[in-house]
Amino acid sequence: MIGGGTGNSAVLRALKNYPLELSAIVSMADDGGSTGILRDELGALPPGDVRQCLVALSNSSSLMRSLINYRFENGGLGGHSFGNLLLSALEKVTGSFEKAVEEMGRILFIKGKVIPVTTHQVRLKMILADRTILEGEKEIYLSQEIDKGYRDIYLEPYPKAHPHAIEEIEKADYIILGPGGFYTSLIPNLLVEGVSEALLESKAEKIFVVNLMNRKGQTTGYKVSHYVKEISKFIGKDIFDHILTNTQSPPVELLHVYAEEGEVVESDLDDPRVLRAPLLGELNEGAKKDLMKRNLIRHDPDKLAEELMKIVHCVRS
Amino acid sequence: MIGGGTGNSAVLRALKNYPLELSAIVSMADDGGSTGILRDELGALPPGDVRQCLVALSNSSSLMRSLINYRFENGGLGGHSFGNLLLSALEKVTGSFEKAVEEMGRILFIKGKVIPVTTHQVRLKMILADRTILEGEKEIYLSQEIDKGYRDIYLEPYPKAHPHAIEEIEKADYIILGPGGFYTSLIPNLLVEGVSEALLESKAEKIFVVNLMNRKGQTTGYKVSHYVKEISKFIGKDIFDHILTNTQSPPVELLHVYAEEGEVVESDLDDPRVLRAPLLGELNEGAKKDLMKRNLIRHDPDKLAEELMKIVHCVRS
Repeated sequence: MIGGGTGNSAVLRALKNYPLELSAIVSMADDGGSTGILRDELGALPPGDVRQCLVALSNSSSLMRSLINYRFENGGLGGHSFGNLLLSALEKVTGSFEKAVEEMGRILFIKGKVIPVTTHQVRLKMILADRTILEGEKEIYLSQEIDKGYRDIYLEPYPKAHPHAIEEIEKADYIILGPGGFYTSLIPNLLVEGVSEALLESKAEKIFVVNLMNRKGQTTGYKVSHYVKEISKFIGKDIFDHILTNTQSPPVELLHVYAEEGEVVESDLDDPRVLRAPLLGELNEGAKKDLMKRNLIRHDPDKLAEELMKIVHCVRS
Repeated sequence: MIGGGTGNSAVLRALKNYPLELSAIVSMADDGGSTGILRDELGALPPGDVRQCLVALSNSSSLMRSLINYRFENGGLGGHSFGNLLLSALEKVTGSFEKAVEEMGRILFIKGKVIPVTTHQVRLKMILADRTILEGEKEIYLSQEIDKGYRDIYLEPYPKAHPHAIEEIEKADYIILGPGGFYTSLIPNLLVEGVSEALLESKAEKIFVVNLMNRKGQTTGYKVSHYVKEISKFIGKDIFDHILTNTQSPPVELLHVYAEEGEVVESDLDDPRVLRAPLLGELNEGAKKDLMKRNLIRHDPDKLAEELMKIVHCVRS
C-alpha cells in the first residue's frame, strides 16, 4: 500500500481484518496544520500521514486511538494532534524518525508496518504552466490552477528512498496505490529516488484504487483513463494489473455540497483490468448534520476491502 | 506518602524496589512552567507533580521514561514536558483528571497508585505579614518575604479531598510526609478539607522526612523543631512517630553555590523519635559540571529507602 493521508488509512483499517501482512509506505511531503508547525518549529519530520496510518493499523484500545487523534483546542498547543506530538517527541528521544515510527507502532499494537518513503526532510514543489512555483503540499492542495497544466512537480532536495520502503516493494505480492490526494499524497511517493524503479521491477500484482471525486482546480474533468495515464507518466509505464473504480452515485444533496470541491470521477476505460463496484461509504447521522465538512464522500472501508480481497483470492486460486 | 514534586519522587523511586504497596497522594497546587500554561490555556488540572510521581513509580522502559520527561525546545510547544501534554490530553479524552492519572499509570506500568489530593481546580494563596497576597504556587515559591512571617496560607476555593486520597490515608500502615518544597508541595496537601482529620484519626505509623536545606526567604533559619511545629500547626497536633533527619554535610563547593538558595537544616530536636542518618546523594559527574543548577543537594533515594525500611522492619518485628 503506497500513499498517505485519509484515503490510505481507510484501506488499511479495512484490510487489517484479513490475514495479510500489511506494509504502508507513506509520503513525507505533508506540511499543513499541526504537522507544518512541527516541521518548522522543531525541525521534525512530518508526522501527520504516518500517524493516520499507524492509527488505522492499531489494535489498541479505542481510548488510546482517541488519545492519538485528540487535538488540543486552545493556546500555544491549539490545533496540534496529540499523536503528532508523540511522534515528534519520540523522534527527539530516539534520535530518528524511523525509530520513532517503530516505537509508536509498538505503543499502538499495530498490525503490519508503517514505513516513511524517505527519511530526508523534503518539500513538495510544483511549477505551474505560467511558471508560478507552488511551495509545499499545503499550497499545492489549495491551488485552483493545477488543472490548467503544470510544468513540473518535484521534491526538494531530491531524496533517496528509505531502504526499507524499497525492500517492502521488492518482496510484496500485491501493491496497492491510492486512493488519496492525487498530487499531494500519492504522486509525492513516486518523486522519491528509487520508488518507480522498484515498482517497475516488482513482480507483485499492482492495484490502482481510483479516487471517488475529482478535486476542483486540480484534477477537474479527469476520468479514470486520465488518472492511469498521469500516474504511469511518473512511474515510466502503465504497471497496473487491476484498476478498482466506483459505480455508485453519491446522494444528490451531497453532490450539491461538493460542487465547490469537485465532481465524481467518471469511469471511461474499457479495459478488462477495470473492476467496477459500489464502493461508497454510508453517511452516518453525525456527518449528515454537518454537511459542509469535507470528505463526506468517502470509500467504505469494508466494501473496498471486499473487492481487494476478491483480487487476492482470484490470483491465488 | 503525601507530598508532591521532586523530593517526593525520590522517595517513591527508592521504595519501589521493596515489597510495599505504595500510594502517592499528590498536591494539586502546582501552577509554574508547562503546568501553569496547561492550567491557564486548557483549563486542565496541574499535571506536573503527578507526572513526576508516575515516572518515579514506573516500571516501563527507559525510553518511555525519557519520552515522558522530554521537554519540547522550540516554538509554541517550547518548555512543555511531553508527560504533561499526555496527562492533559488524557484528561480531555477520558473526561476526568482522575481517570487520566489511572490510564497514564497503566501506560507507564507503575507499581502502586498516584492519587491527586483533590480533583478541584484550586489556587494556592498566601497572605504575608504586610497583607501582600501571593497568588499561586509559583509566586509563593519565588517569594523571599515569607520568613518575615505570614498571616495565612490557603487554597481557593476551599476544596474537598478526593475520596480515594482519604481512603488511602485511612487504610495505610505507614504514612510518610515530605521531603519537598515546604509551603509549595507539602503544606498544600494539608489545606484540603478532610486530609488533616484523616491523618489525626489514622492508626498508621507517621514518618516525617525533614528537608535537607532551608529555602532562603521562606524557611530561613528553620531547624528540625520548627518544621515539626509548623507542620503540626496545620494538622492540629504533632502526629509523628518518626522524624528522619540528615547528618551529612554537603561538599563545601556546593554550599557556596547554594548560599544564594538557603542553608543546611540543623537538627536541634532532642527527642527519641528523631532518627539521624547520612542521607545525602552523591554528585554525579554531569551535575558537577553544572554547579549552578538547582537541587544539587538532594536525598540519596537508596539511603533514604534504607532508613525508612528500618522503621518498617522495627515496627513489624
